[in-house]
Amino acid sequence: MKITGTFIDEISHDIPHQNWGRAEWDADFAHMKSIGIDTVIMIRSGYRKFITYPSTYLTKQFGCYAPSTDLVELFLQLADKHGMRFYFGLYDSGTYWDTGNLQPEIDTNRFVIDEVWQRYGHYTSFGGWYISTEISRRTKGAIEAFRTLGLQCKSVSNGLPTFISPWIDGKKAVLAASATLSKADAVSVNEHEREWSEIFEGIAGAVDAVAFQDGHIDYDELPAFFEVNKKMADRFGLQCWTNAESFDRDMPIKFLPIKFDKLRLKLEAAAKAGYDKAITFEFSHFMSPQSAYLQAGHLYNRYNEYLDTLI
Amino acid sequence: MKITGTFIDEISHDIPHQNWGRAEWDADFAHMKSIGIDTVIMIRSGYRKFITYPSTYLTKQFGCYAPSTDLVELFLQLADKHGMRFYFGLYDSGTYWDTGNLQPEIDTNRFVIDEVWQRYGHYTSFGGWYISTEISRRTKGAIEAFRTLGLQCKSVSNGLPTFISPWIDGKKAVLAASATLSKADAVSVNEHEREWSEIFEGIAGAVDAVAFQDGHIDYDELPAFFEVNKKMADRFGLQCWTNAESFDRDMPIKFLPIKFDKLRLKLEAAAKAGYDKAITFEFSHFMSPQSAYLQAGHLYNRYNEYLDTLI
Amino acid sequence: MKITGTFIDEISHDIPHQNWGRAEWDADFAHMKSIGIDTVIMIRSGYRKFITYPSTYLTKQFGCYAPSTDLVELFLQLADKHGMRFYFGLYDSGTYWDTGNLQPEIDTNRFVIDEVWQRYGHYTSFGGWYISTEISRRTKGAIEAFRTLGLQCKSVSNGLPTFISPWIDGKKAVLAASATLSKADAVSVNEHEREWSEIFEGIAGAVDAVAFQDGHIDYDELPAFFEVNKKMADRFGLQCWTNAESFDRDMPIKFLPIKFDKLRLKLEAAAKAGYDKAITFEFSHFMSPQSAYLQAGHLYNRYNEYLDTLI
Repeated sequence: MKITGTFIDEISHDIPHQNWGRAEWDADFAHMKSIGIDTVIMIRSGYRKFITYPSTYLTKQFGCYAPSTDLVELFLQLADKHGMRFYFGLYDSGTYWDTGNLQPEIDTNRFVIDEVWQRYGHYTSFGGWYISTEISRRTKGAIEAFRTLGLQCKSVSNGLPTFISPWIDGKKAVLAASATLSKADAVSVNEHEREWSEIFEGIAGAVDAVAFQDGHIDYDELPAFFEVNKKMADRFGLQCWTNAESFDRDMPIKFLPIKFDKLRLKLEAAAKAGYDKAITFEFSHFMSPQSAYLQAGHLYNRYNEYLDTLI
Repeated sequence: MKITGTFIDEISHDIPHQNWGRAEWDADFAHMKSIGIDTVIMIRSGYRKFITYPSTYLTKQFGCYAPSTDLVELFLQLADKHGMRFYFGLYDSGTYWDTGNLQPEIDTNRFVIDEVWQRYGHYTSFGGWYISTEISRRTKGAIEAFRTLGLQCKSVSNGLPTFISPWIDGKKAVLAASATLSKADAVSVNEHEREWSEIFEGIAGAVDAVAFQDGHIDYDELPAFFEVNKKMADRFGLQCWTNAESFDRDMPIKFLPIKFDKLRLKLEAAAKAGYDKAITFEFSHFMSPQSAYLQAGHLYNRYNEYLDTLI
Repeated sequence: MKITGTFIDEISHDIPHQNWGRAEWDADFAHMKSIGIDTVIMIRSGYRKFITYPSTYLTKQFGCYAPSTDLVELFLQLADKHGMRFYFGLYDSGTYWDTGNLQPEIDTNRFVIDEVWQRYGHYTSFGGWYISTEISRRTKGAIEAFRTLGLQCKSVSNGLPTFISPWIDGKKAVLAASATLSKADAVSVNEHEREWSEIFEGIAGAVDAVAFQDGHIDYDELPAFFEVNKKMADRFGLQCWTNAESFDRDMPIKFLPIKFDKLRLKLEAAAKAGYDKAITFEFSHFMSPQSAYLQAGHLYNRYNEYLDTLI
């Protein structure tokens, strides 16, 4: 299973910034392309007051800080240049997702979607929307919000595809800022299937693909969960992608690049379950030859050797 | 607002050591100089049994370990060579600051100050003293201790300048070794002003500048706190510096280089408040092209581009 | 005291993987050799389902994952090439050591030892066995398990040497995944001596050397503990090695390379106590010029300068 997409982690929640300029991003898109990545997904256009593009609306509405670079423009220009498809990640106010009242989040993103499509919709590479909120089974109101947001995206952009990337509520589903690495009350495969079938049913037609994050369950749980995910996706007419995390969740340093064999196990499980596409979170920190984490460059080399064995 | 000073993090509390020798430090002073840094501050001359110079007094009194390099001599020689001003950070026994009885700390530093001035006072670059203890509003006995220590420094060195770098007791004022990133009982601007006015009044004349660490409050709180800091400094005749932290407090890895736009926001807030000088904690790990954290080199480049826009 | 051995951290518990291939490992063995390392110890052959070599037995018994590289073969080939001695670290199921019933662990390793010796025993560099479980004073059943495992290793391999590397239950004996750096209920030197004398007596004849990890006690406690360790080792006819940890236990980032002077203090304490050999955990992450942690390369340089002063 080849990785053909990657998130771009702007605005980052929990991965320290690399402080790249245009030259570094340009080189990184070339690195991505060289291993077959054709899709880049900007993980979110903003979080609270930090935003990726000089949004008139967000600045006025929330007092967001002016970014020194228009990253949306930069990424679209580079995606055009390198022949890649760009997905735009929606804004996250950081306020409403935990409250159960998601209407303000939906309303805000209606403005963001309009503004962004008007400003950047003409780029050839503008290829889809990423509904950026990461939920799991217990996020109240998520179905309705995902459905509405997905339809808003599609209606403004002549039906460009949308996707989400939720997490499985597994044993490793702990906060990045906590010291622990695992928890006891993990979801079972059956619960996962029951709860997510309901969600899939509710979002079908508004969301085209679901890319579950693959790092919250243990390696020997991958086959069972992946099989169920694919079955649900097929049943409700969604594409089933995997979000192959290229960072290691098992280590006290949160987070550095993953050990190659762990990534391989996850990709092999996705291939075996017949998944449609593999994307990763994310190339630039964890798999890039120019990452500040030098382990990433070695992972890039190991991954390339692995690609050679697939041919 | 240009950064014109940096701490040198020896002896480090919580930032892993880079194991540099003379060659690396020499190169780093040149890097500092190239972006306009004219002031280096050795953050402390010792902490508990680890010391930066072969102190006869501290070795005898506390059984301190002999350092393999005399870092005070090294830094003074390099400051001389590169035409920079060196501030000497006082010794911290690690014992008394939490007890409310600071007399032993004062007594110890009387010997340290004498010893250091006698041994190193002839260096051209020996330009001031840093009263190294980091306090916030609730440190008992701090006023008297700061006053006495400042006067001791001045009396022995013909009035060389002194400064302190306390922290604002804001929402991000949590221990580096804790897993959390923020706390609930943050200080308000009004409390901050009331409590620090009392401290400023008590230390005026003995301490010449106060460089509050800028990383414990949120970005949108900067203007209010900075305005009050400047007002208090003016009122009591102190210089108002900012200690612009170049590491990121919002990430699970404690600590890696800060995202450039965050540093920019903090520097712009200091400029707007009319601050007198900006120093950083600290160049060598977080902004240097030769830092072990490669993000630092990129921050250096982004900062240089920013300097170009200021001209 | 010169470091002449190093662990190789495969399979890692808590240090993020560097993703090296054969070329990087070959270069690293050369770097090790250049500072006088003649012994490499693979820290464990497997942990739970991750294993270092394609074990027929472990795969069948526990469903272990097939590794993409046979690391045991790789390390033995490189040890042969560079003229070094290789110690094989036993398998750790991750299941029994906390239960007090260690018989399954012993039984499993009987098969592993046989399989490994049959498959790899012909390599010139196969020079010993590392009983990989890290225990401290309170591990129930450890004496009998160590004794049996040691004898199993010896009987199959014509008496090749065995060693263990336990930890002192000192103030820094906290879990890597905890946020804290120290604890209150540390062992005293007397308790340590009483409890470990009993263990040493029980394992004498089956275990040839004990290499206590040197990082769980404070620097000024090193002389007292090291003296007792050496006394016990002499009394029961064991070799006394030190496991000089080259990572820093005092920092919030768990773990990066240690400050050179800290390593030096520990090595000097071991020399003073008359220790027989110094090994380190571990060269490749924390002391290697090609480590992803660039501080390691500087530590390598500082250590080399230190070696020059020893001659």
